[in-house]
Amino acid sequence: MPDLPEAPGAPPVVVLVPEDPGASVLTRLPGVRAVVYRPGAPLPPEAARAEVLVAHGIEPEDAPPLLAALPRLRMVQLFSSGVERWVGVVPQGVRLSNADHVHGVAVAEWVVAQLLAHVRDLAAYRTKQQECRWEAHRTGTLVGARVLVFGSGDIGEGVRARLVPFGCEVTMVGRTARAGVLDQAAGVAAVPAHDVVVLALPLVESTTGMVGAGFLASMRDGAVLVNVGRGPLVDTDALLAESRTGRLHAILDVTDPEPLPADHPLWTAPGVVVTPHAAAITADIRERIWAAVARKVAAHLTV
Amino acid sequence: MPDLPEAPGAPPVVVLVPEDPGASVLTRLPGVRAVVYRPGAPLPPEAARAEVLVAHGIEPEDAPPLLAALPRLRMVQLFSSGVERWVGVVPQGVRLSNADHVHGVAVAEWVVAQLLAHVRDLAAYRTKQQECRWEAHRTGTLVGARVLVFGSGDIGEGVRARLVPFGCEVTMVGRTARAGVLDQAAGVAAVPAHDVVVLALPLVESTTGMVGAGFLASMRDGAVLVNVGRGPLVDTDALLAESRTGRLHAILDVTDPEPLPADHPLWTAPGVVVTPHAAAITADIRERIWAAVARKVAAHLTV
Repeated sequence: MPDLPEAPGAPPVVVLVPEDPGASVLTRLPGVRAVVYRPGAPLPPEAARAEVLVAHGIEPEDAPPLLAALPRLRMVQLFSSGVERWVGVVPQGVRLSNADHVHGVAVAEWVVAQLLAHVRDLAAYRTKQQECRWEAHRTGTLVGARVLVFGSGDIGEGVRARLVPFGCEVTMVGRTARAGVLDQAAGVAAVPAHDVVVLALPLVESTTGMVGAGFLASMRDGAVLVNVGRGPLVDTDALLAESRTGRLHAILDVTDPEPLPADHPLWTAPGVVVTPHAAAITADIRERIWAAVARKVAAHLTV
Repeated sequence: MPDLPEAPGAPPVVVLVPEDPGASVLTRLPGVRAVVYRPGAPLPPEAARAEVLVAHGIEPEDAPPLLAALPRLRMVQLFSSGVERWVGVVPQGVRLSNADHVHGVAVAEWVVAQLLAHVRDLAAYRTKQQECRWEAHRTGTLVGARVLVFGSGDIGEGVRARLVPFGCEVTMVGRTARAGVLDQAAGVAAVPAHDVVVLALPLVESTTGMVGAGFLASMRDGAVLVNVGRGPLVDTDALLAESRTGRLHAILDVTDPEPLPADHPLWTAPGVVVTPHAAAITADIRERIWAAVARKVAAHLTV
């Protein structure tokens, strides 16, 4: 089928996308021309007209010259929920759009998976199977667990919605207090009353290092800390010191530093589960991302 | 405080209980006198007046002489959901009461814990941590999974209620078809259309061996079978034969035989997770059981 002629006077909006699957999804949007670029390689000539950059796989040092080469840029769309790398890098007047409501489902699922595996002692039972030992032992349960969720975005809300049917009492903490949501200060004060603390927060000045020695000391014996926000929300040295007592458990999908070097003590700290920023990495991630990017770009174009 | 005098003409109902914690819970019921017996040891003299036997820890060969020694018996209350060991053993006219609505919560939690651990590949990530490897890979997800649950009692309903918020499409199968519930034959016919099959059924004649070679062959590639009913629902040899193809996964908390001998091939069958009938064994199990037994005995006494 030949290309339809463009409406006169309405040239298509050029969207730069970092991979072919994205081009085929975005080209379906009316009025959009998707052009593939390769992060790190020279830009295609259409970049001079590009109004939207879908940014992924770009090294931090490559971002400023790339953005400077896009004179008509109006929007930068990310693959990630976190935007901290791009704040202050994207020029004023250019809209910075994250991938919220893309990873929430997968990350919330991961949080509940890890909490259930922890309380039901699945690793110990796996070892028993490897030893061919038919020997039950009592485990914990989520029934009645008091869970404090920092972050009331789609990840935090997704965690809450999945935990309530297990009989958990879930308390939400958001940026500002509202019905059913504590503010940050009240949330921190509530830590000692909870069995599980989930961090699903963005990394901003007020949250960097918020889980330090004092926060950890206020957690009750046997409590579990889950971090799916950003590594630097937690003071790694303070967590390592606390983990040596064996008093707490931590389940970390994000760490500081990241990636975690092979010789870092977090890998082997007692009671600490580490995964490599994998909570959102499910088989359908590319479909999810491109569907969301298409929604975001379409919404931007109609503004 | 001295014992209150009993109301004249209303002697207390004697309930035989197999452990002290049960005696202290049941003695709180008005009109009940709880007497502890030791399974396998001679009965206390009060047994001659016992109307209720709370049966636990009794070897199959000890059951008939024990029941014969209780001339005033009206009710046998079990700790388990399954009653198959006691059907035909309890004399006619004596009520056989199982522990339904006791284990449902813990077992449903276990089913979801194991399914999540399976789809999110937690064991592989645990291995990566042991190898200090920061390397994400794509995993499955429960989002959009089609789950067929055989058994619409408290376990099956508990599984359904917990899976729906994860975005699963859950189909229930019960003894008789009704709104939202398939009957057994329709359920078996629906197996090929599902990604997960959960068995939460009692062991009766019509369910024994229901998961044989044909049932397993009708499951789609990569599907998961979860058994929290009773081991003999599944034909173990057929499952072993199918597991050799690597086509299916099985998560079994009950097996046939049970306990599973250390040299049984199920322990090491590809894609098979075995746990030692542990799905209900959480730290609060004794409280749960005795609270439920007290409710059941109280209800019986008011009939």
